[in-house]
Amino acid sequence: MDDDIEGLGPYQERPRTFPNMRNKSHAPLLFRALMRINVRVLLVLLLLCAGAIFYVGASTSPIIVFVFSVCIASFFLSIYLTKWVLLKDEGPPEMSQISDAIRDGAEGFFRTQYGTISKMALLLGLAILGIYLFRTTTPQQEASGIGRSTSAYITVIAFLFGALCSGIAGYVGMWVSVRANVRVSSAARRSAREALQVAVRAGGFSALVVVGMAVMGVAILYASFYVWLGVDSPGRMKSVDLPLLLVGYGFGASFVALFAQLGGGIYTKAADVGADLVGKVEQGIPEDDPRNPAVIADLVGDNVGDCAARGADLFESIAAEIISAMILGGTMAQRCKIEDPSGFILFPLVVHSFDLIISSFGIFSIRTKRESGVIGATEDPMEILQKGYSVTVVLAVLTFGLSTRWLLYTEQAPSAWLNFALCGLVGIITAYIFVWITKYYTDYKHEPVRTLALASSTGHGTNIIAGVSLGLESTALPVLVISVSIVSAFWLGRTSGLVDDTGNPTGGLFGTAVATMGMLSTAAYVLTMDMFGPIADNAGGIVEMSQQPESVREITDVLDAVGNTTKATTKGFAIGSAALASFLLFSAYMDEVAALSNVPFKQVDIAIPEVFVGGLLGSMLIFLFSAWACSAVGRTAQEVVNEVRRQFIERPGIMDYKEKPDYGRCVSIVASASLREMIKPGALAIISPTVIGFVFRILGYYTGQPLLGAKVVAAMLMFATVSGILMALFLNTAGGAWDNAKKYIETGALGGKGSDCHKAAITGDTVGDPFKDTAGPSLHVLIKMLATITLVMAPIFL
Amino acid sequence: MDDDIEGLGPYQERPRTFPNMRNKSHAPLLFRALMRINVRVLLVLLLLCAGAIFYVGASTSPIIVFVFSVCIASFFLSIYLTKWVLLKDEGPPEMSQISDAIRDGAEGFFRTQYGTISKMALLLGLAILGIYLFRTTTPQQEASGIGRSTSAYITVIAFLFGALCSGIAGYVGMWVSVRANVRVSSAARRSAREALQVAVRAGGFSALVVVGMAVMGVAILYASFYVWLGVDSPGRMKSVDLPLLLVGYGFGASFVALFAQLGGGIYTKAADVGADLVGKVEQGIPEDDPRNPAVIADLVGDNVGDCAARGADLFESIAAEIISAMILGGTMAQRCKIEDPSGFILFPLVVHSFDLIISSFGIFSIRTKRESGVIGATEDPMEILQKGYSVTVVLAVLTFGLSTRWLLYTEQAPSAWLNFALCGLVGIITAYIFVWITKYYTDYKHEPVRTLALASSTGHGTNIIAGVSLGLESTALPVLVISVSIVSAFWLGRTSGLVDDTGNPTGGLFGTAVATMGMLSTAAYVLTMDMFGPIADNAGGIVEMSQQPESVREITDVLDAVGNTTKATTKGFAIGSAALASFLLFSAYMDEVAALSNVPFKQVDIAIPEVFVGGLLGSMLIFLFSAWACSAVGRTAQEVVNEVRRQFIERPGIMDYKEKPDYGRCVSIVASASLREMIKPGALAIISPTVIGFVFRILGYYTGQPLLGAKVVAAMLMFATVSGILMALFLNTAGGAWDNAKKYIETGALGGKGSDCHKAAITGDTVGDPFKDTAGPSLHVLIKMLATITLVMAPIFL
Repeated sequence: MDDDIEGLGPYQERPRTFPNMRNKSHAPLLFRALMRINVRVLLVLLLLCAGAIFYVGASTSPIIVFVFSVCIASFFLSIYLTKWVLLKDEGPPEMSQISDAIRDGAEGFFRTQYGTISKMALLLGLAILGIYLFRTTTPQQEASGIGRSTSAYITVIAFLFGALCSGIAGYVGMWVSVRANVRVSSAARRSAREALQVAVRAGGFSALVVVGMAVMGVAILYASFYVWLGVDSPGRMKSVDLPLLLVGYGFGASFVALFAQLGGGIYTKAADVGADLVGKVEQGIPEDDPRNPAVIADLVGDNVGDCAARGADLFESIAAEIISAMILGGTMAQRCKIEDPSGFILFPLVVHSFDLIISSFGIFSIRTKRESGVIGATEDPMEILQKGYSVTVVLAVLTFGLSTRWLLYTEQAPSAWLNFALCGLVGIITAYIFVWITKYYTDYKHEPVRTLALASSTGHGTNIIAGVSLGLESTALPVLVISVSIVSAFWLGRTSGLVDDTGNPTGGLFGTAVATMGMLSTAAYVLTMDMFGPIADNAGGIVEMSQQPESVREITDVLDAVGNTTKATTKGFAIGSAALASFLLFSAYMDEVAALSNVPFKQVDIAIPEVFVGGLLGSMLIFLFSAWACSAVGRTAQEVVNEVRRQFIERPGIMDYKEKPDYGRCVSIVASASLREMIKPGALAIISPTVIGFVFRILGYYTGQPLLGAKVVAAMLMFATVSGILMALFLNTAGGAWDNAKKYIETGALGGKGSDCHKAAITGDTVGDPFKDTAGPSLHVLIKMLATITLVMAPIFL
Repeated sequence: MDDDIEGLGPYQERPRTFPNMRNKSHAPLLFRALMRINVRVLLVLLLLCAGAIFYVGASTSPIIVFVFSVCIASFFLSIYLTKWVLLKDEGPPEMSQISDAIRDGAEGFFRTQYGTISKMALLLGLAILGIYLFRTTTPQQEASGIGRSTSAYITVIAFLFGALCSGIAGYVGMWVSVRANVRVSSAARRSAREALQVAVRAGGFSALVVVGMAVMGVAILYASFYVWLGVDSPGRMKSVDLPLLLVGYGFGASFVALFAQLGGGIYTKAADVGADLVGKVEQGIPEDDPRNPAVIADLVGDNVGDCAARGADLFESIAAEIISAMILGGTMAQRCKIEDPSGFILFPLVVHSFDLIISSFGIFSIRTKRESGVIGATEDPMEILQKGYSVTVVLAVLTFGLSTRWLLYTEQAPSAWLNFALCGLVGIITAYIFVWITKYYTDYKHEPVRTLALASSTGHGTNIIAGVSLGLESTALPVLVISVSIVSAFWLGRTSGLVDDTGNPTGGLFGTAVATMGMLSTAAYVLTMDMFGPIADNAGGIVEMSQQPESVREITDVLDAVGNTTKATTKGFAIGSAALASFLLFSAYMDEVAALSNVPFKQVDIAIPEVFVGGLLGSMLIFLFSAWACSAVGRTAQEVVNEVRRQFIERPGIMDYKEKPDYGRCVSIVASASLREMIKPGALAIISPTVIGFVFRILGYYTGQPLLGAKVVAAMLMFATVSGILMALFLNTAGGAWDNAKKYIETGALGGKGSDCHKAAITGDTVGDPFKDTAGPSLHVLIKMLATITLVMAPIFL
C-alpha cells in the first residue's frame, strides 16, 4: 500500500491522500481480455454482418438500405470518437488509480446487475413463449400463414433481442464514461475547452451507438421478418401488419431499461445521499472529499446510475417511439389504401437516421480553440453546447422536411407531406419549449429557484414545503404545452387530406406520431449533452479526490454545473417524448386488441365502474412505484450513513488524513442493497398490469362483459400514463430545483456555504436526489413499459 | 394591563404570565348582542317555520314529514347539548382571558373571511343567473312548464341557499369550539372523564347541527320546489326530474366549503409552522409556550381551520352525496317505471335522518363516571370513543336495513331491497376498513410510523424521503378497498332484479350510491369525533399557556393525542366517501348533459386526443392546486417566522417572561395573509373547469365535433377525481405519519425530546402540516366541487 504512495507526483503531500482505491481486482481475466479487443471485435463483426444485412435489407426496401448505410457509417464515426477519447492521457497516477477504483466498482456492479436482469429476461421470455403458444390467433393471422408457434417465436425473439440491445446500450454508456472521466480530469489541467471537448465526444460516442443501435435493431428485425415470413407475397401477411410483430422488441428494451434505471438510480442516489448526510451535514467536509468513506461509491454511482441507465432509457424511448409510429403508419396506410405503404411504415427509421447525421454535425461543431481559432477562452460552456444544439435543430428542421417530402408524399393527398412536416415542426418546437420550461424551473438564474433558496433561510421545513410546491406547480406549463401539441398535431394530420374508404379523415393519430418523431429528431445530440453531465461530474470528483490545484477544480466545477442543467433539460425532453409516445402506444394497443379479438375496439368508456376502477388502479400504481423507488434509496442511504458513521468512530484518524477509509465496504453495501431493492418496484411494474388484466377478464367472463379485461387495462394504461407524466415532472423538477437552490447558496447568496440556510438547502438537495435520479427517470421508462407490456401480454386479457 | 394580573388565581407567579391577550375588542355590539340571544332566536325561528315547513312537507310526501320531524328533534337535542356545555364553568380568569383572546381572533377572522366569501358567492350567483337566462332549455323542460327564467331562479336560489347553509355550518363549528375549549380546560382540572365529555358533547352539538342542516336544507328545497312547480300534476314536471334542480345547493355548499377550508387551512398551518420553526426548533421552547408570539394565532387557527372548515367540509360532503344519490334514484326509478318513485328519491334523506338518531345514541353513550357507575377512571379515552362508535355502527346496520325495507321495496323486484341493504353494508365495512388503514399508517403503534421515526435518526433528509414514500405507498390499500367496494356494490345493485323496459338490469349505479350512503351513515358521530380533536387541542393550549399544574396538562395531552388520531381517521373517512360521491356525481353529470343536449351521452372515450388532453389537464389541476395551497402556507409561515424572530430580537425580555410578546400582530399578519392567499387556488378551482369546457366547446364547433366541450370536461372530472383521491390520501397520510413519528420520539424513543432525531422529526412534522391540514382537506372539497360546478355550468359547455 505504502509503496504506491511513494511513486506519486508532486501534487500532494504524503499524508493527505489515499491513492490506492483498488481493494481487489473485480474483473476476471477473460472479461478484461474481451474488453481490450472490444473495438476490433465490433469492427470485424460489423463487417461480417454487413453483407448479410444489406442483402436482407435490399430484398425488403431501398429505404432499409439507406437506414443500414447511415447506421453503419455512424458506428464507424463512433469508433473514431472513442479512439480519439482513448488517445487522451489518463493524467498522473493518483488520478488513474482513483479512476481504476471507480471502473472496477462500476463494472463489478454492472456485471452482477445485468446478470440478474438477464436471468429475469430469460424467465420472462419463457413465460411469453408459453402465453403465445396457448393464445388464440386471429383469422387474418391464420390466413396469412402465421400460426400460433410462429407468432410465439417472433415475439420472444424480438423480446430477447430488444433486451440484449438495451443491455448493450447501457453497457456502452458506462464503458465510455468510466474511461472518459479521468481523461476529462486530466484535460482540465490543461484547458477548459479541451476538457469540454473530451466529455462531449465521449458522450457523443455512446449517444451515436445508442441511437444507431435502436434504429438498426428495429430495421434488422423488420427486414428479417419481412424476408422470413414472405411478407407482401400473394396470400401472405401484408407489410402494414408487420410492425405489430415488433412490439416484443420495445418491451424487451423497456424491461431492461427499467431495471437498469432502478438499480442504477438506487445505487447512485443511496451513495450520494449517504455520503452527503454524514460528510457534508454532520462532519462539514466538502463534497467528494477523499476522507469520506462513501465517496468512491458515489462516483461509481454516477456511472452506473446516470450513464448506463440513461443509455438504456433513451434506447427504449427511441425503440418504443419508432415501433408505435410504424404501427400507426401501417394502420393509416392500410385504411387509406395507399399503394406503397413502405414510406409510411419506415418513416421513423429514416427520421432517426437523419438524427444520427445531424447530431454528428452538432457534436463535431464543438472543437478546441486551436482548431476553430475564433472562440475565446473564457466563454460559458453552456453556450457552446447550446450553439451545437442550435446547429442540430436547424439541420433537423431541414432534414425533417426532406424526409416527409421523400416518404410521405402520396398522390391521393398531394399536400399531406406538408401537413406532416408541420407536425414535425410542432414536435421540434415542443421539445424546445420543454427544455426552456425545465430551465426556468431549475436554473438559479430564474425566479423559482431563488424563491426556493429564500425559503431555506427560514429553515429545513419551509425549504421542503417550497420545493414540493415548486415541483407540483412546475407540472402545469409542460402539460399545457403537451396538450396544445397533441391537439394541433392531431388536427394537422387530420386535415392532411388522407381519407379512408368512407371519406373520413384518418391522418390524425399519425400526425401526433410525426410530432413525436419531430420531438425526438435531435435525440442523439440531446443524449450527448446528457451523457456529458455525469462524465463531468465524475471528472470533478476525481480532481477533488486527487487534490488537484484550485484552478483545475474551478474548471471541472463549471463543467459539473453545466452538466446539471443539461441533465435536467434532458429529463424534460425525455418525459415530453414519453408522454407523446405513450399516447401512440395506447392507440397501438387498441388496434392490437381489435385485431386479436376481431371486435372493433375504439372506445374506453370510463363511465363503466370496472373501467373507472382500472383507472384508479393505474394511477395508484404510479404512486406506489414512486414510493418504493424513493424508500429503496432512503433505506439504502441509511445503511450507508450507519457504515460511514461507524468508520468515522472506529477510525478517528480518517479526519486528519492519518487513516484510510474503507471505500470498498461502502461500494459493496450499496451494490448489494440496490440489487435487492430494485426487485420490488420492478416486479410491481411487470406483474400488476398482467394481474389486473387477467382478474378483470375473469370478472368480465362471469358477469357477461366481453373484453372487460382489455378495457380495464386500457384505462389503467391511460391513467397511469397521465399520473406518471405528472409525477415524473414533479419529481424531476423538484429535485433539480433543490439541487440548484443549494448551488445558488453555495455561490455566496443568503449566507453562503456553512450557514443555516445552506444546511436547510442540503436537506432539500438530499430529498431531491431520489426524486430526480431514481423515481423520476424510472417513471419515464415505466410509462412506456406499461404500454409495451400490455401490447405483448394482450392475449392474457382477452 | 397590570391590574388584571393582580386578580389572578394561585396557579402562577406573577412575572411568568401575560394573561390579558385581548388587545382590542374585535366584535361590534350588535353582533355580540345577536350572539347572546342566538339560541332563543333559533328556537323561535324554528317554531315559526315548523308550521309552514310541515305544511309544505305534508303536501309532498309523508317521508318528508318524517325527515323534518327527526331534524327538528335533533335541533332541540343540539340545543340541549350546547346548554349543557355552556353551563360548565370557564375556569379561573387567566384561562378565560386566553380563551377570550382566541375567541376574538377566531371571530374576527371568520367575519372578514366569510365577508369575502359571501361577496364572491353573490357575484357567482349573478353569473349563474346570466348563464341560465341565456341557455337553451330541453324540450322536456319546456313541455313541463319550466321555462328558462324559472330554471335560472331555481338554480341561483339553490346555490345561494347552499352557500348560506354551508356558511352557517362553518360558523356553528367555530362558535361552539371557541366556547368549549376553555370549559374543557377547566374540566380537566377536575377529571379526565369530565373533560372528555365536555369536548364530545360540544363536538356532538355541531355535528348534529351540520348534518341536520344538510338534510333539512335539501328537504326544504325539494318540498318547496315540489309545491311551487306543481310536480307530478298532470302535464307538469315529474318528481324523478326534480333532484337535478337541486345541484345548485351542492355547488353553493362546496363553493363556501372550499374557501373556508383554504382560508382556514392556510391560517392554522401558517401560524403553527411559523410558531414551531422559531419556537421549537430555534429557541427550544415547548409547544404553546406563552413566550411564543405566534401561540395565540396558532390556537385561533385550530378553531378557524379545523372546526369551522371541517364543519363546512362535512356539510358539503353530505349535501353532495344526498343530491347525487337522489338524482340516480330518480333516474333509475324512471327507467324501471316504478309507480311511486318517492322512496328511491328520498332514501338518502331518510338514511341521514337515522344517522342523526343513532349518532345521538353514540354521543350520549359517553357519560361521566358517576352517571354510568361502571367504567373505571383510568381507561383510554380512545377506547371510550371507539365504544361509542361501535354502538353507532351496530345501530347503523340495523336502521339501514330498516330503511331499505321501508323505502326500496318494490313489487317489481321483491328482493331488491335486500341487495341494497347489502350495498349499504359494503359501504359501512368500507368506512371501517378505511379508518383502520388510516390508523395503521398514522399511528405509532404500527410499523410504518416507527420506520419513519427510525429514518429521522439519520437526519432531516432521510426523514423527509421516508415520509414521502410512506405517504405515496399508503395510497395503495385504500384504492384497492374503494375498487372492490365500487365493483361489488355495482354488481349487487345490478343483480337486484330491477330491470328497464328492455329487460336490462339498471340498479348498478344506484347500488354504488347506496354504498356511499352506507359509508356516510354514521357521519354525525364521525364528525363529533373529529370536532373533538381541535377542541381538545385548544384546551391543551389554554392549559399550557395559563401554566396549570403538570397533572392537568397530562390530561389534556392525552385528549390531544386521541384527537390527532380521530382527526386522521376522519380524513380517511372523508376521502373515501368523496371518492364514491364523485363517481356518482360524474354519472349525474352525464345524465344532465344527455338531458340538456337531448343526445345520448353514455361514454367518455379517452382515445380521442382532446378527451385525453382533458384528462391530462384535470390531473394537472390537482397538482397545481396542491402546489398553490402548500406554497401559500409556506409563504405565510415565512412571514410569521420573520415576525417572531423580530420580536425575540427587539424584546429580549420575552424569553425570561419579563416582556409581553405582541400576539395581536401575529394574529393580524396571519389573518390578512391567509385571506390573500386563499384566492389564487380557489379561483383556479372555479375558473379552470369552466374555461376548459368553453374552449373545447368552441374547438369542437370549429372542428365539427359535437359535445366536445362536455366530453372533455367529463374526462377532466374523472382524471381530476382519481388524481385528487390519490393526492389527498398521500398528503393526509404523510402529514399524519410525520406528526405521530415526532410524537413517538417525544415519548422518549430514539433519543427523545431535544435529540437530533427529534429535530429531524420536527422538520417532517412541519412539512406535513400544510399537507394534512391545508392541501389534503381542500382536495376533498375540490373533487366534489369540480363535480357540482360542472353540473351547474354544463350549459356553457354545450
